[in-house]
Amino acid sequence: MSLEIIIIGDELISGKTRDLNGWYASGCLLSNGLLVNEIRTVGDNYPSIASALRAAVKRSQVVIVTGGLGPTEDDRTTEAVARVFRRPLVLDQDLLFYIKESMDRLGLSWSPSLEKLAWLPKGARILDSNRQMCGFSISRGDCSLYFLPGVPEQMRHLMNKAVIPDLLQKHRPRVIPRNRLLKVYGMSESQIADAFEGLSDTLSAVIFGFYPSFPENHITITVRGKEDVQNDRELERAEQEIRDLLGHYVFAADEQTMEGVVGEALKERKMTLSVAESCTGGLIGHRITSIPGSSLYFDRGATVYSNRSKVEMLGVKQGTLSAYGAVSDETVREMTEGIKRVAHTGIGIAVTGIAGPEGGTDDKPVGTVYIGLSADEQTSSARYRFSGDRDKIKLQTSEMALDWVRRYLYGYPFIPGI
Amino acid sequence: MSLEIIIIGDELISGKTRDLNGWYASGCLLSNGLLVNEIRTVGDNYPSIASALRAAVKRSQVVIVTGGLGPTEDDRTTEAVARVFRRPLVLDQDLLFYIKESMDRLGLSWSPSLEKLAWLPKGARILDSNRQMCGFSISRGDCSLYFLPGVPEQMRHLMNKAVIPDLLQKHRPRVIPRNRLLKVYGMSESQIADAFEGLSDTLSAVIFGFYPSFPENHITITVRGKEDVQNDRELERAEQEIRDLLGHYVFAADEQTMEGVVGEALKERKMTLSVAESCTGGLIGHRITSIPGSSLYFDRGATVYSNRSKVEMLGVKQGTLSAYGAVSDETVREMTEGIKRVAHTGIGIAVTGIAGPEGGTDDKPVGTVYIGLSADEQTSSARYRFSGDRDKIKLQTSEMALDWVRRYLYGYPFIPGI
Repeated sequence: MSLEIIIIGDELISGKTRDLNGWYASGCLLSNGLLVNEIRTVGDNYPSIASALRAAVKRSQVVIVTGGLGPTEDDRTTEAVARVFRRPLVLDQDLLFYIKESMDRLGLSWSPSLEKLAWLPKGARILDSNRQMCGFSISRGDCSLYFLPGVPEQMRHLMNKAVIPDLLQKHRPRVIPRNRLLKVYGMSESQIADAFEGLSDTLSAVIFGFYPSFPENHITITVRGKEDVQNDRELERAEQEIRDLLGHYVFAADEQTMEGVVGEALKERKMTLSVAESCTGGLIGHRITSIPGSSLYFDRGATVYSNRSKVEMLGVKQGTLSAYGAVSDETVREMTEGIKRVAHTGIGIAVTGIAGPEGGTDDKPVGTVYIGLSADEQTSSARYRFSGDRDKIKLQTSEMALDWVRRYLYGYPFIPGI
Repeated sequence: MSLEIIIIGDELISGKTRDLNGWYASGCLLSNGLLVNEIRTVGDNYPSIASALRAAVKRSQVVIVTGGLGPTEDDRTTEAVARVFRRPLVLDQDLLFYIKESMDRLGLSWSPSLEKLAWLPKGARILDSNRQMCGFSISRGDCSLYFLPGVPEQMRHLMNKAVIPDLLQKHRPRVIPRNRLLKVYGMSESQIADAFEGLSDTLSAVIFGFYPSFPENHITITVRGKEDVQNDRELERAEQEIRDLLGHYVFAADEQTMEGVVGEALKERKMTLSVAESCTGGLIGHRITSIPGSSLYFDRGATVYSNRSKVEMLGVKQGTLSAYGAVSDETVREMTEGIKRVAHTGIGIAVTGIAGPEGGTDDKPVGTVYIGLSADEQTSSARYRFSGDRDKIKLQTSEMALDWVRRYLYGYPFIPGI
């Protein structure tokens, strides 16, 4: 079945607003086994809307259109539908009554522009059985067209309550494709591509996708075979092959995150963590505490931006700072031992580095970062060199520090420094 | 001139990834006076790419295509260009040499899949003069096609350095529209709409746009008159009227951020800041230190997640925690006074609250947050109630805390608590 989405709105082709509706609708359709071929985004003008509608009914069996159903003069979708498909607009007296009633109920005053909402193309079917939201569908030969409001909450509600049930009734896919997302940290896209050369040729109906999600790389596995049971087995086999090829570089699947995986591992082992951050400025703590229930294992963080704070909060020696500098292996080791000691936690981690754009030297250029971890009376540390702007250096540092905790807890080797 | 964008990638028609490139490219073009007619998003397969390219060259003079230029097997754009426009792929030896050299320079190992990047359609012009990024352009009759990588940073770099200069040389618009973005915090969209009723009717050729950007509200002012000088004057007048109407709720313009504005104000006044964070877990420090040069005014942060850390790092009294709880006015006042004292800074701020989803009570439901600020021997504090999920509560808390610093520094009243 051929399915496309048309998004209408000047704000979406002028860089003002990032699309939410095409993204949501395509994901919602896919999770019901319905694959979208194309998303087309056009402005609020008759020629663009008309040309998109004409092309769509020629090539697609299902067309979902969002936007341009409101009361203002830049809402032109309904009129365009009437003109393109030669269906005169008809005033739906029932709908008009409902609109007036709900304005009353909300204590809002009636405005003549609202009458526009009750004029629909002849033969249109209203999607919201409660008539609280704009939205209708029409048929045109073999093609079903659904027109939804651009307001994301309303559009989502109607997708789930009206469009999806309708489509599943008409075109229920016999088999729903199976998906898995594997998340990789520490291997580049081309290293992953090379590793995939080792994949067996016997995986049938399996499609792989590769998506950089800085600083991670994500791999999607999709199985579109003809039978559910077979698909489940193929998905499992493909996932296992990839995990065997990439080893402990695969850190999470589907909705899991690095900070979530670290949190789970700490909880299982009943261990506690504290963090000393210099260049990341609090980002590591922020990520750790984005996980509900993180207070079970996260005790505290010391964001030691000034040298004085390193001395006062963590007991870093003034002599170490003077001799080796704040960005040094010696300092990061004292930071990590210091935070573990003052926080009385099982694990302490620390980072110090040069996030830039200023502050680099020949010896320690921007992006130079030291990471340390203390646990079991032992301290490990390494130097890394990250590239990119300030935000990217902070993000990579936080990811590497969290990955150190993960690797420590699972007994994997750390990603080597330089 | 007719201009369209084609976005290639299965992840964008399956709800996996929200588009960034079409959004960025269309905004970037518009700010140079070039209006996009349409953004088309298709999957990584030959029939879809081919049909989008064929339709595009028929109706548009400029076509910008992003995605599918990488080394993996699902990157199919270059090959599709070769097939659709019958231009055989040619190995660019120079480019191959550059790719190998830059892999060497970055200390990365060569991988055979990278050779693919050096095969380009005959007659293609490489966009990056340093040959560090994929991307090329070709001409087809009157139509110029630009092919850019899907990686947002690279795509943005090439848009600004190669595509825009090229387009402006060929199609410079006579008058460039003027834009300004004003950022508002602490007023709802409908409060802003009401305030706009007071706007004078004499602003000609000025278009306003309203875009929620949680937890902020952004207002765009666009002036599309016929003369540059007049446009500049109208833009200035519109901005001044809005600033008069909304007062100190407007905190920034264009690229400025809340943390950037706070940083500038601290620097100008040569004042220093320290932060004690409980529910935000480090987010406030992270935002402050996202600004280059923030070490000039940011001394340290104490992320005091456990009660013990509040006592040990900030000197909060055990009795206060027992009597009033960690989320209380009494505790936030001791936190803010504590961090200011231990950090020896001019200003100390503190936050404590319930980010959820667990931990709420009847008296202090999820979203209850206390904010405190100490400076000049005085401490202010207030209670707020934020809504939304954990991430949204953390984000609103960080925004309110930063807004407190801004308002303190400018002498504006704080947004009232509950």
